[in-house]
Amino acid sequence: MKKYIYTAITLLLLCTQTLSAQRMYTKDPKVEQRIEKLIKKMTLKEKVGMLHGNSKFFVSGVERLGIPEWSMSDGPHGVRAEINRHDWNYSGWTNDSSTYLPTGTAFAATWNTELAYKRGQILGSEARYRKKDVLLGPGVNIIRSPLCGRNFEYFSEDPFLTARMSVPYVKGLQSRDVAASIKHYALNNQETERGTIDVYASERALHEIYLPAFKATVEEGGALTVMAAYNKFRGEWCAENKYLVRDILKGEMGFDGAYITDWGGAHSTVKSAIAGLDVEMGTEKANYNEWYFADPLIEAVQKGEIPESLVDEKVANVLRVMIRTNILDPKKRFNDGVINTKEHQQEAYQEAVEAVVLLKNENNLLPMNIGSMKSIAVIGDNATRRHCDGGLSSEIKALYEITPLEGLRRKFGDKVQINFAQGYEKTSFFVPGENNGQGAGRFSEDNKVKEGLLNEAIEAAKKSEAAIIFCGLNHDFDTESADKMYMQLPYGQIELIQEVSKVNPNTVVVIIAGSPVDLVAPSICAPAIIWGWYNGMEAGNAFADIITGKENPSGKMPFTLAYSLEQYPAHAYNNYPGRNGIVNYEDDILVGYRWFDTKKQPVVYSFGYGLSYTEFSYGKLSTDKQSYNQEDKIRVKFLLQNTGSVKGGEVAQLYVSDVESSVLRPTKELKGFRKVFLNPGESQQVEIDVPVSELGFYDEEKRAFVVEPGEFILHIASSASDIKDSISIKIQ
Amino acid sequence: MKKYIYTAITLLLLCTQTLSAQRMYTKDPKVEQRIEKLIKKMTLKEKVGMLHGNSKFFVSGVERLGIPEWSMSDGPHGVRAEINRHDWNYSGWTNDSSTYLPTGTAFAATWNTELAYKRGQILGSEARYRKKDVLLGPGVNIIRSPLCGRNFEYFSEDPFLTARMSVPYVKGLQSRDVAASIKHYALNNQETERGTIDVYASERALHEIYLPAFKATVEEGGALTVMAAYNKFRGEWCAENKYLVRDILKGEMGFDGAYITDWGGAHSTVKSAIAGLDVEMGTEKANYNEWYFADPLIEAVQKGEIPESLVDEKVANVLRVMIRTNILDPKKRFNDGVINTKEHQQEAYQEAVEAVVLLKNENNLLPMNIGSMKSIAVIGDNATRRHCDGGLSSEIKALYEITPLEGLRRKFGDKVQINFAQGYEKTSFFVPGENNGQGAGRFSEDNKVKEGLLNEAIEAAKKSEAAIIFCGLNHDFDTESADKMYMQLPYGQIELIQEVSKVNPNTVVVIIAGSPVDLVAPSICAPAIIWGWYNGMEAGNAFADIITGKENPSGKMPFTLAYSLEQYPAHAYNNYPGRNGIVNYEDDILVGYRWFDTKKQPVVYSFGYGLSYTEFSYGKLSTDKQSYNQEDKIRVKFLLQNTGSVKGGEVAQLYVSDVESSVLRPTKELKGFRKVFLNPGESQQVEIDVPVSELGFYDEEKRAFVVEPGEFILHIASSASDIKDSISIKIQ
Repeated sequence: MKKYIYTAITLLLLCTQTLSAQRMYTKDPKVEQRIEKLIKKMTLKEKVGMLHGNSKFFVSGVERLGIPEWSMSDGPHGVRAEINRHDWNYSGWTNDSSTYLPTGTAFAATWNTELAYKRGQILGSEARYRKKDVLLGPGVNIIRSPLCGRNFEYFSEDPFLTARMSVPYVKGLQSRDVAASIKHYALNNQETERGTIDVYASERALHEIYLPAFKATVEEGGALTVMAAYNKFRGEWCAENKYLVRDILKGEMGFDGAYITDWGGAHSTVKSAIAGLDVEMGTEKANYNEWYFADPLIEAVQKGEIPESLVDEKVANVLRVMIRTNILDPKKRFNDGVINTKEHQQEAYQEAVEAVVLLKNENNLLPMNIGSMKSIAVIGDNATRRHCDGGLSSEIKALYEITPLEGLRRKFGDKVQINFAQGYEKTSFFVPGENNGQGAGRFSEDNKVKEGLLNEAIEAAKKSEAAIIFCGLNHDFDTESADKMYMQLPYGQIELIQEVSKVNPNTVVVIIAGSPVDLVAPSICAPAIIWGWYNGMEAGNAFADIITGKENPSGKMPFTLAYSLEQYPAHAYNNYPGRNGIVNYEDDILVGYRWFDTKKQPVVYSFGYGLSYTEFSYGKLSTDKQSYNQEDKIRVKFLLQNTGSVKGGEVAQLYVSDVESSVLRPTKELKGFRKVFLNPGESQQVEIDVPVSELGFYDEEKRAFVVEPGEFILHIASSASDIKDSISIKIQ
Repeated sequence: MKKYIYTAITLLLLCTQTLSAQRMYTKDPKVEQRIEKLIKKMTLKEKVGMLHGNSKFFVSGVERLGIPEWSMSDGPHGVRAEINRHDWNYSGWTNDSSTYLPTGTAFAATWNTELAYKRGQILGSEARYRKKDVLLGPGVNIIRSPLCGRNFEYFSEDPFLTARMSVPYVKGLQSRDVAASIKHYALNNQETERGTIDVYASERALHEIYLPAFKATVEEGGALTVMAAYNKFRGEWCAENKYLVRDILKGEMGFDGAYITDWGGAHSTVKSAIAGLDVEMGTEKANYNEWYFADPLIEAVQKGEIPESLVDEKVANVLRVMIRTNILDPKKRFNDGVINTKEHQQEAYQEAVEAVVLLKNENNLLPMNIGSMKSIAVIGDNATRRHCDGGLSSEIKALYEITPLEGLRRKFGDKVQINFAQGYEKTSFFVPGENNGQGAGRFSEDNKVKEGLLNEAIEAAKKSEAAIIFCGLNHDFDTESADKMYMQLPYGQIELIQEVSKVNPNTVVVIIAGSPVDLVAPSICAPAIIWGWYNGMEAGNAFADIITGKENPSGKMPFTLAYSLEQYPAHAYNNYPGRNGIVNYEDDILVGYRWFDTKKQPVVYSFGYGLSYTEFSYGKLSTDKQSYNQEDKIRVKFLLQNTGSVKGGEVAQLYVSDVESSVLRPTKELKGFRKVFLNPGESQQVEIDVPVSELGFYDEEKRAFVVEPGEFILHIASSASDIKDSISIKIQ
């Protein structure tokens, strides 16, 4: 225990300084005047029309004032196909296919912030082309339980990685005059009972784990809209949770855009209006005037339950978003967008390549010179399965999706005998839940080995020089609205991997999944394992190029793969999926590697882990000073060298440990990273800056982050379990 | 790789020397003459009558020659209640209850060879009292998969521990003129398809892992009968497997007793006769004359398919057993046996106490001064469940069985408010299999939390000063004839443990189970964990005394508790329960800790692990020499001190690593242990002897154990994962 000295005033000033330095938007007096003028010209009915859907994905404008309809669209890794105005059927257009980028966790696994910005640009450009003003994403919730069905849309178990990847994504997206909609605010960490579950988490967990990515995307990224989560927090639905919205989002974070419900996530008129909800979407009432933010809102004003100025505030928030995205000034737009360009597809490919994580590579089995082989076996239902059209709201009508088998056939089909075997069968089916609320259903499946399919796979593997098994999950597991039932690989895949590995020593397992699965048995019996994700439309090409060494894997796991579900913090203490409608996050701040580190739990593959076809050597870690003040930035330096024989990318990770603290702190926390590409023999002096202000914990009494003076240790690492060098510093 | 030098002749001589030095029995010429004379007087029909059952548990004698009926009885931890001669119903006697000792794994967890001898004496004495000539046990198969239903009857994953505990058991048993029947010979490591499964294992696995306990009990222990396993080995049923029986058991091991089928385990007449089967039991044919070793055996002799001398050999084997157990000379008997004595019950208590393993004891929660508390919660179905009458052949009509709740009530019921809650419900039921073969059925169960029971338990825990949860398995899981379906704790117990631990910080979890279960979540969330086993008739008294500190736990785990089933060697490579009727032991010699060590797999609680209420400090390890010859004994010495404040017992374990070897060797192997009891502050110079000949591996080409000259490292350890000191020696 050390004593800490600080003054609230100093801290407040520091915070403000940091924020103002990084803040994307500040209110422009001219814009505010324009908004005020427009609102003054509106009737109450016109105003309210701008605050609720008039169809599935549109909000009314005010034509006579030059305010067009406001259009929205899913989703986070591609612009969703056109949906009918008044029902959930697809419109059947022929020009609404789009670029399908790797999904959330895949994207996060690139640890490449430049790709993140480009991703945003692509999505913005395609959304703009499709005349969408708001693209509903990205999803920046924390991966708390391996079972959450929506993990594949989110980024990571770590708030820092999530924030660093989402900020450029949002900036890139909004640079194309399309508003992001950061979702799901907040603590939407499970799909089970998502419409009703009541989450309790401490202020520390809130501020250190669950909110940082929202805060960063709002403050630094300038996210123009935020989407309310379906769940409750401390007894109140997120759409009408004054503490989360009015106090934190619009207060502490200074959010001045539009706070929008998820579809069907509104529950009240007056309470929501006061709490800070701006726009109601997707309510299940055929008559749009009956929605909470339609006639009932007008009545609430007329009855004096809320002042009209509160409605004006909401309209202003919407107009502010419209103006910042040039909806009211189309000529100011960057352009009218483009879709399905070669450049977009090339970016999809680049992201896919950098997303791939090499988990195991015994005896350097990979890369394999497939072109020189006579025959390879390609095994697994995921070798031929397209994933673009799954997962519910994030489903995409991709212009194309190169499956793994197609990728290999295109490149080697004329040179090598490819023996395909399905290996296992997708036998899952949806079991509806007991109530009509969101997330009530579950996928169930017949998790048995199909002997015939297994034997075909074994035969294919036996007669081939190498075997590549594309297995994992699919969107019956990684999906909105239902959680996984377990962490195991379904459909008897473990047995498939075991048996194929036995008959063919050159077996490569490629895991196609967006959330943690149990890799214990494969990690022992398979000689090589790649984590391949739902890797977008270019997945098959990327896999082929990685496997054959044309590309070198450089992805790092954005979440921990542990030995069993019960090891994960949410499960060890039975804090998932809650009891009697309540889930209490007793795991608190110890989420992900913070937990495994602190509780000394062994894991199969740690957070930040990923191999390469080359080797990297880390030099000694140094800092620019030995002692820092609270307002300083710490600059760390180290030499990174590619000591292997091929070009490769390494994600160097900077973790920080607070040596002595008045409160429990995780053993270490990610506070910086840099992805560096180096040619063989090449070295680079890598610098990473960490503001001292980032090293604190959230002090629940002071209601502020506090950096206690004393010793901190900085670690440069290749993963959370592979620290290369450490250095001690003092904070004054 | 080092070169090794040896001569087969030297080795053979060494082996013979070792064997003859340790061998329990050698053929006595007078006895052999007597046998020969008796056989000469018999008709073929009389001879054959001695080679098959004439009822469920009897074999005919030859009354006119003074040879009585030969009687047998289950089982390994107590003499089973009387069964009708011609059906499987119990006879309903009122005087056939018996002493119920801790079951196999519990017994092994004592690591106390003196208790093992006493155990044998008790069982022998009670069997003799019940006029049983053969007691069917002990079961010395190796615990290969956590799922094997019969693990609870076996001893350990380690052949050395199994051998060291079974030899004195057999000696003690047979000292009371009752023949042991070592079972199940051999490689009966699963109950699934046990009647037909065909096991393939290498010669190394056979000789290093699966046979050593049989070899030791036969050679050193003098086991008089051996029971054939139901399964096949390399294509042939164990009852008619010439290689296993004629070549190894009766050849290499020099077994000259009776080789008996398990009940219903005979499959042929001529083949079995030639292979070395002596006695057929339990065949499912109502007419005993139709059994393979009845009229068909006579016919085989008459047809000249086998010589009558082969029948004579078998009769001689039976007579030899009878003579060595004084069946033919009742006056020579040690005594007529006693049953249900206070001494036997005291031994049951002592074994139960020493079997208990303390796995976790956060903040020294244990021992708890229950007598000074106002209230305790006792939770769990196993708090009130008796286990003596489960498991099939090993079920016992115990004179009594003190349940955990009874144990606590007897000692504290008048002082402390005991709030009992069942917590969970035993909902398992038997699902018959598809064929009538052995082991075809499985227990299935409704593995759900019962909210009502859970809430009662939480309430009980909330209003009590401490909570003790007695949970784990029961004999619906740990049972002959069916394997477990998974390693998890059933009936929603994990949630029970999690929730009770949350509301009461003084929660102790007592695992009642005989085989490995998944303790990942409890190991994280419960402050104290005890492994309590099926701990015999005095279980409840032992638990109460351990929990309150009257007794100090000194047991050590005889098997590894890993993070997941897939981590275990049989499962990582999918070598359980086999495919198409065949199971190939590809895990080979890497069974148990040999695997986890060598493959660097983390475990929750390792082999040999167990805490105490006191602390032990180990001094420096030394050996009597630095260099040894092949025929030497290595004497290791170290000082062991009780540095804590209460008396306690420690099992010091000696592991050996072969530093360089021409073949793969496990990272380390148990080669010695000593259980030492010390008063606070007391220290003792502990010596353990290891013959150099024990350090070898089985050379498949030479068909002999070979000790390659070179460096070996000896480790003294408190568990397989807690080495205290190591020393290097040279073997010439």
